[in-house]
Amino acid sequence: MLAPPWIAVPPPGYGGIEAVVASLTEELVRRGHEVTLFAAPGSRSSAQVRTVLERAHPQEIERALFEADHVARVFRLVDEARWLGMPFDVVHDHCGFTAFAMADRLSTPLVHTLHGPFTADTAAFYARHADKAPVVAISRAQLAAAPRALRVAGVVPNPVEADQWPLVRTKDEYLLWVGRMTPEKGPHRAIVAARLAGMRLVLAGPVQPGKEGVFEREIEPHLDGERVLYVGEIAGEHKRRLFSQARALLMPIRWPEPFGMVMLEAMVCGTPVIAFPEGAARELVLDGQTGFLVDDEAEMARACTRSREIDPGRCRAAIVERCDVQTVASAYEGVYRRVAQSRPGARHTRSTAPTAAGGPVVLVDPVAGDLRGTAGR
Amino acid sequence: MLAPPWIAVPPPGYGGIEAVVASLTEELVRRGHEVTLFAAPGSRSSAQVRTVLERAHPQEIERALFEADHVARVFRLVDEARWLGMPFDVVHDHCGFTAFAMADRLSTPLVHTLHGPFTADTAAFYARHADKAPVVAISRAQLAAAPRALRVAGVVPNPVEADQWPLVRTKDEYLLWVGRMTPEKGPHRAIVAARLAGMRLVLAGPVQPGKEGVFEREIEPHLDGERVLYVGEIAGEHKRRLFSQARALLMPIRWPEPFGMVMLEAMVCGTPVIAFPEGAARELVLDGQTGFLVDDEAEMARACTRSREIDPGRCRAAIVERCDVQTVASAYEGVYRRVAQSRPGARHTRSTAPTAAGGPVVLVDPVAGDLRGTAGR
Repeated sequence: MLAPPWIAVPPPGYGGIEAVVASLTEELVRRGHEVTLFAAPGSRSSAQVRTVLERAHPQEIERALFEADHVARVFRLVDEARWLGMPFDVVHDHCGFTAFAMADRLSTPLVHTLHGPFTADTAAFYARHADKAPVVAISRAQLAAAPRALRVAGVVPNPVEADQWPLVRTKDEYLLWVGRMTPEKGPHRAIVAARLAGMRLVLAGPVQPGKEGVFEREIEPHLDGERVLYVGEIAGEHKRRLFSQARALLMPIRWPEPFGMVMLEAMVCGTPVIAFPEGAARELVLDGQTGFLVDDEAEMARACTRSREIDPGRCRAAIVERCDVQTVASAYEGVYRRVAQSRPGARHTRSTAPTAAGGPVVLVDPVAGDLRGTAGR
Repeated sequence: MLAPPWIAVPPPGYGGIEAVVASLTEELVRRGHEVTLFAAPGSRSSAQVRTVLERAHPQEIERALFEADHVARVFRLVDEARWLGMPFDVVHDHCGFTAFAMADRLSTPLVHTLHGPFTADTAAFYARHADKAPVVAISRAQLAAAPRALRVAGVVPNPVEADQWPLVRTKDEYLLWVGRMTPEKGPHRAIVAARLAGMRLVLAGPVQPGKEGVFEREIEPHLDGERVLYVGEIAGEHKRRLFSQARALLMPIRWPEPFGMVMLEAMVCGTPVIAFPEGAARELVLDGQTGFLVDDEAEMARACTRSREIDPGRCRAAIVERCDVQTVASAYEGVYRRVAQSRPGARHTRSTAPTAAGGPVVLVDPVAGDLRGTAGR
């Protein structure tokens, strides 16, 4: 498991990728796999942890010095394991760009999980290096924006640890919005919708450095301590209580978000999600069963008043079935098996000709897990 | 020639590394070498230019996405040249960290020029990857701070194109200070020294974003348009005139700067350099012959009044002998020959054992060019 060098696993605070790595790694070890976790200093895991840098670099994310250092050291250790007759079967890479771009130079098959959205820059990057290693997408929405050349080993959602979240059937009379306080995430639209619905709204999430102005202009004037509340960043028991007791979670996003962990966290507690049909929301929310997909604030307000129609048990079951860490680990086991059977790096042997050497690794059924109900079989 | 992906070669403005690459590349082509320059879009050269990204990234220097993209693409092209039976003899790498850390996975010998000072982070990086490729230092001072494990293929100074600079024997009565307006570079110390010497001082160089406060507090109060002048950033004919007509260049630096291009540019015009004995100043300035090494502002002031004793012709000759692009290209030819004879990447063949495979490439006489007078023979 090749985690980024920036933040320890599990993350002490912010760190979505590191949380995914932590959760998946623990489950793989629980299943009896031998896992080595290459990660930032400070990491703790049931897997064997190996750190190669002196410290984590949370303030220097994406700095080439540290990414190249981390990845090149790990590649050497992976190669050495092979030389010593104890090869890894597969490297699961979560780490930026360097490992993927150099994966054809590694002695061991590598599979790369796409953690971010595609921008013009990252799409160009992935198109240029598509033959280097197979990828896993975290949603079909993410895949829809991906360069065609990518070799997709599966679509596997990020895991939620269902047993860490309570199912609560009796809800309080408030709506919940959780996220970074930025316009794409739509806290101001949640305020409009809640007001139209005549319901209380709790806003939670960090105000990031540089975004204070937006918060002060768009959000603060609406905070009255009664109808619209802001509770800052949430974690632990407070977070579980807010998610599980909310009447519904609002997701009035206006960008193609490739995933949406907060939607899983709501639904696994039995809290329906009312979302704009953007990005992964369209596949994570089953319209009319685990929440509603709505086009604007007015529709969102109407859906809020209907949220009692949604069965909390159905919400939880749908997420457990598709996104529980058990399901996700099973899906990745399938991916690892297929990737481990491919022959990596053969094309890099210097003595061979470009056709024999440069051809793509033979891979495999295009989409392994179907996010709409069949993931992980 | 593997230039960074950030700024075109030659650089339209700021870009010390790109200026070195431009100058060296032109001279190598002039000598009949076949050179391919892998560089940022917008680059122009007598060599064959190949760009692999869509655009230069001057505002995103060191971003792993672009460095990994650039380097991995170039590595593939270098490997393909070998597969096609037209291999490069050697890759000369000027590009950050990724190429050096991955050089053991390239089919062609690579030599990496150390362009920056060693910090705790970069020293740790170079120590960890020292076996990957030989390096060239740009000064003995730089080398003194280097991790011992590095394999040094030579010390070769940055080139100056002597024929682009006039030798001026009759000087005006002003002292010159050139650099970024930061405390390490010491513009405030230059002001003290010039005042003690009773001479005019011209300050030139950019005020960088975020450093305006230092400039306003430390420098601006001293600007009187007469005894202390600030002329901003300089280039072209203005720069040549300022350098060549100055009585002396002041270098009251207080950090171990690994090189100092402005010292070369002064001396090649016949302008003596009066420097604190930090970093490369100790080897670039020949004390009493091409300038003076002094310990503080008071000594600097005394040296200013003695600067007529320095022969402008001797200043120029010393630099031409050691740092002209011809000398530098000759030194690099020697480095390339030795590096090309080494066997790169052999250790990476997956079937070989770690001792045969992981051992260092045999290299070579430790320091090729002697910066104090014998470089490049």
